[in-house]
Amino acid sequence: MKRTAFFISDGTGITAEALGQSLLAQFETFDFTKLTRPYVDSIEKAQLIVQQINAAEQADGFRPIIFDTVVNQQIREVIATSKGFMIDIFSTFLAPLEKELVSQSSYTVGKSHSIGKDSNYMERINAVNFALDNDDGARTHYYDKADLIMVGVSRCGKTPTCLYMAMQFGIRAANYPLTEEDMEHLQLPNALKPYKDKLFGLTIDPDRLSAIRNERKPNSRYSSFAQCEFEVRAVEQLFRKENIANINSTHFSVEEISAKILVEKGVDRRLK
Amino acid sequence: MKRTAFFISDGTGITAEALGQSLLAQFETFDFTKLTRPYVDSIEKAQLIVQQINAAEQADGFRPIIFDTVVNQQIREVIATSKGFMIDIFSTFLAPLEKELVSQSSYTVGKSHSIGKDSNYMERINAVNFALDNDDGARTHYYDKADLIMVGVSRCGKTPTCLYMAMQFGIRAANYPLTEEDMEHLQLPNALKPYKDKLFGLTIDPDRLSAIRNERKPNSRYSSFAQCEFEVRAVEQLFRKENIANINSTHFSVEEISAKILVEKGVDRRLK
Repeated sequence: MKRTAFFISDGTGITAEALGQSLLAQFETFDFTKLTRPYVDSIEKAQLIVQQINAAEQADGFRPIIFDTVVNQQIREVIATSKGFMIDIFSTFLAPLEKELVSQSSYTVGKSHSIGKDSNYMERINAVNFALDNDDGARTHYYDKADLIMVGVSRCGKTPTCLYMAMQFGIRAANYPLTEEDMEHLQLPNALKPYKDKLFGLTIDPDRLSAIRNERKPNSRYSSFAQCEFEVRAVEQLFRKENIANINSTHFSVEEISAKILVEKGVDRRLK
Repeated sequence: MKRTAFFISDGTGITAEALGQSLLAQFETFDFTKLTRPYVDSIEKAQLIVQQINAAEQADGFRPIIFDTVVNQQIREVIATSKGFMIDIFSTFLAPLEKELVSQSSYTVGKSHSIGKDSNYMERINAVNFALDNDDGARTHYYDKADLIMVGVSRCGKTPTCLYMAMQFGIRAANYPLTEEDMEHLQLPNALKPYKDKLFGLTIDPDRLSAIRNERKPNSRYSSFAQCEFEVRAVEQLFRKENIANINSTHFSVEEISAKILVEKGVDRRLK
């Protein structure tokens, strides 16, 4: 069944979207059209959103579901005039929290919530720079500064994972692509040997790897299923032999892989 | 006041964390210690978390606040034996949603929620690769494929913004650092002229820029306040002259900058 969902915020919309997405994921038989509307911070913008909500109601024949984290009460009242079904994230939970903390929230007193710039900023930028500077085995002499070093065959997903961990957690993650030479000798390259405790392996199904490599270098030996299978099997053997914890990226999202690595390696996030 | 908060999930913990963080941000006078505990997917792991919660209660002299999105009822029951104050994210909202959708949720029938791998995967990887391949003006001949091209002085935050938009929204964003030559002539470089409608400017306070550059190249002309001020002023003048929408990155997080750019440019996210 088709339904429309709106994630509405006077800020980035990240919270409304994250919560809305995971609540809607519990209703698998529905086909939701999901629309995020950040920075709805004026009456005029709210009136525009009301028009969009009502148009969706007309088109679907059902009320759109609205997840909102709008702080300003006047703006919320405008949105409430729409034909949508509103899920009120903030006030639902702030009442019990205010009671527990014996304290009024900024929401109740009408102050807006901004992520803003904070002490995390430089930590995060430095982590992203670290991931970029130490990508693809280009440089190995900063490995002593790394929180983690991801290893695996070329194009198995190391770089996006390192960048996500940098952005989301402030983790400094380098990555090193294992070469055919490493695979043939079933040996860790010398650059990695001193940092065995920082290594985490990424593996992938050979057919998925072949598809990904074909987008870059179509019809090459590098992209062939046979080559991908050889590399993946060799690397998995190396992981076993060297006892390197690893995860198969084929069936997990970057978020899932990253969260699993942090748990497995016991690495603490640097962002507060 | 000091309090401890736990974000507990049998998945990545992203939802519990996003919602918990923004609810706690409404209580500005508190100093929360925030602990994320993803993949709590067994009774044993839940028992370990209970110990951590109770230890925090002992240390703080107050009940820790627990935000959880654990689906498994047996695991939730174990966590409920702790001394924490539980905010029950899923069941609070799923009941009204089930009524509105006239449908049972997977949660109610006990199925777990995984982000998993989906059609978004390649879109996202391709966007990250696009940002990396078209970083720092290194290549300009793929600008026709770009959704956006970020422009600004060196080290004003273009790369993290492009990577975030790629990862979060699947947006293909290139970035081009404006050079002293561009500034002196107050002209857009030829490579950018055909793509004026894709440009978005990033500016920054000169003292912040100087601090960031000093981390890379301490005590250089490049990092000096005078040089940073000259470049920023020139670039801001160029943005005005060429009528290029822009934002000052100094006081906003990468999330805020990215969300604002999408709204301002009317660019649709590619991830569903």
